[in-house]
Amino acid sequence: MEINRDTIAEWLKSLQDSICTALEKADSSQTFREDLWDRPEGGGERTRIISNGAVIEKGGVLFSAVHGDVPDFLQREKEHSAGTDDRNKSQFYATGVSIVIHPSNPFVPIIHMNIHYFEMDGGTRWLGGGIDLTPHYINEEEAGYFHTELKKVCDKHHASYYPKFKKWADDYFFITHRKETRGIGGIFFDRLNESAEMNFNQNLAFWKDIGELFAVVYCELIRRNKHKLFSEQHKQWQLLRRGRYVEFNLVYDKGTKFGLETNGRVESILMSLPKLASWEYDFKPEKNSEEEKKLGLLKKEISWA
Amino acid sequence: MEINRDTIAEWLKSLQDSICTALEKADSSQTFREDLWDRPEGGGERTRIISNGAVIEKGGVLFSAVHGDVPDFLQREKEHSAGTDDRNKSQFYATGVSIVIHPSNPFVPIIHMNIHYFEMDGGTRWLGGGIDLTPHYINEEEAGYFHTELKKVCDKHHASYYPKFKKWADDYFFITHRKETRGIGGIFFDRLNESAEMNFNQNLAFWKDIGELFAVVYCELIRRNKHKLFSEQHKQWQLLRRGRYVEFNLVYDKGTKFGLETNGRVESILMSLPKLASWEYDFKPEKNSEEEKKLGLLKKEISWA
Repeated sequence: MEINRDTIAEWLKSLQDSICTALEKADSSQTFREDLWDRPEGGGERTRIISNGAVIEKGGVLFSAVHGDVPDFLQREKEHSAGTDDRNKSQFYATGVSIVIHPSNPFVPIIHMNIHYFEMDGGTRWLGGGIDLTPHYINEEEAGYFHTELKKVCDKHHASYYPKFKKWADDYFFITHRKETRGIGGIFFDRLNESAEMNFNQNLAFWKDIGELFAVVYCELIRRNKHKLFSEQHKQWQLLRRGRYVEFNLVYDKGTKFGLETNGRVESILMSLPKLASWEYDFKPEKNSEEEKKLGLLKKEISWA
Repeated sequence: MEINRDTIAEWLKSLQDSICTALEKADSSQTFREDLWDRPEGGGERTRIISNGAVIEKGGVLFSAVHGDVPDFLQREKEHSAGTDDRNKSQFYATGVSIVIHPSNPFVPIIHMNIHYFEMDGGTRWLGGGIDLTPHYINEEEAGYFHTELKKVCDKHHASYYPKFKKWADDYFFITHRKETRGIGGIFFDRLNESAEMNFNQNLAFWKDIGELFAVVYCELIRRNKHKLFSEQHKQWQLLRRGRYVEFNLVYDKGTKFGLETNGRVESILMSLPKLASWEYDFKPEKNSEEEKKLGLLKKEISWA
């Protein structure tokens, strides 16, 4: 099959389908509702949302394919790198799948994935994305499982990818004002196109493998934890950790900021926010509790794999 | 009494005291806890927090007096206006009282007030502040009462103040991505020092009157609404509206951004966030409901007074 933006978008749509099917099966009680949206400036979205399920309290799996004038910062970057002052607006095309799942059981982690393809006039194109995990309680064996699966997929394609992209996630998913990571990280990468060692098609194969890993890993984490009993205290802690998730997404997340500033569809951008979140003034977990242990693990540079 | 930064700070501390006393009386079940904090770069805070009261679910009344090197953006502004390129760091001093109250009854509105005094080397000094109201449900008669009380205080000092500062609040407390105001506004002003018509001491008298209006108005709004019965649906709506409050504070509020970026005390800065908030995908209130009516009133330029 020829590789171009249309075949990539088709592949992403089928990925959205298969992920939704897998999540519905894992949830076993609710199905996704679908909303189609036409972007006034070109392109659109196919948003799928699941709510109040047996496992998933609120989750979204979003496919989008949009096009139009390139944003100003990219236009300037392009002019700069070309050494020209070309005032003709370039056109861009971007397509991707974004996912955030907030489970109801505090022992099932929050997960986020995004993979996207971008191109603009003049032949520039790249792949970006990542998967990261935000457990409310950290089970080190499961954190190890998650990172090991990511590492296996990375290693299959290039030995440098896991360490490089793991560090990138550590740096990106950091709540600076709290001096803590959002969760246990994962991998994050951007502007992959071609290097001396990996051509575009090889990177595309890596990127697709990451997309396909999502459902496998998350359904396994659901299976392991969905029946665990939890108390009111566990639930309270979950709501506080979701508060931190909201802080990261509204204060730091580049995709959220970019979407809100460029008149994106607000309901799609903010589907990442949980159904319920909590803030308590100066909350300190009890000494030697599971909650305190968790806080001690919200650090960069932990070797989970 | 001589007017200088110390006497202004003393006045603010006594205002904090009297507001806390009034709110404790209005709540009738809980009292404020106090935390003192020394700012590493100079000065500190006296934070007072009330939680889980009969009326107030979460609220903070914060006094601060801080000093140190002026922030870069102000240093540049100063050099620019002086036409010099003075690389000597100026010193600043700032003191203020900030309040956010989240009530438990959805018919009692959220309120926010901030008043502050700022000075820096070279004789620059100014007053800033404002009060604004965020009802979960809009009672037009009460919105009228609130704005009329603000207008009376403004009018006592200068005829231009209410219209000017009301518009400033409309523009400031706007959630751009939602295309709605945070609430019904109030007044907002900054950099008041002296003009042809009002000298500094006259502006100081206005500013103090605003500070003293807070407890009068809010205790009246509590008295009118605290016994109103509410349903689960009213409570859900309150949580969704609090979600918007979180969006405003984390995405747009300049004080919050500045505090988080300059290593302020996170627990004090984020005391403005509610105990519980909610986000629901693409929530639409029922036709002709109180909730729908409220959304229609989240606009700039409504003459409430």
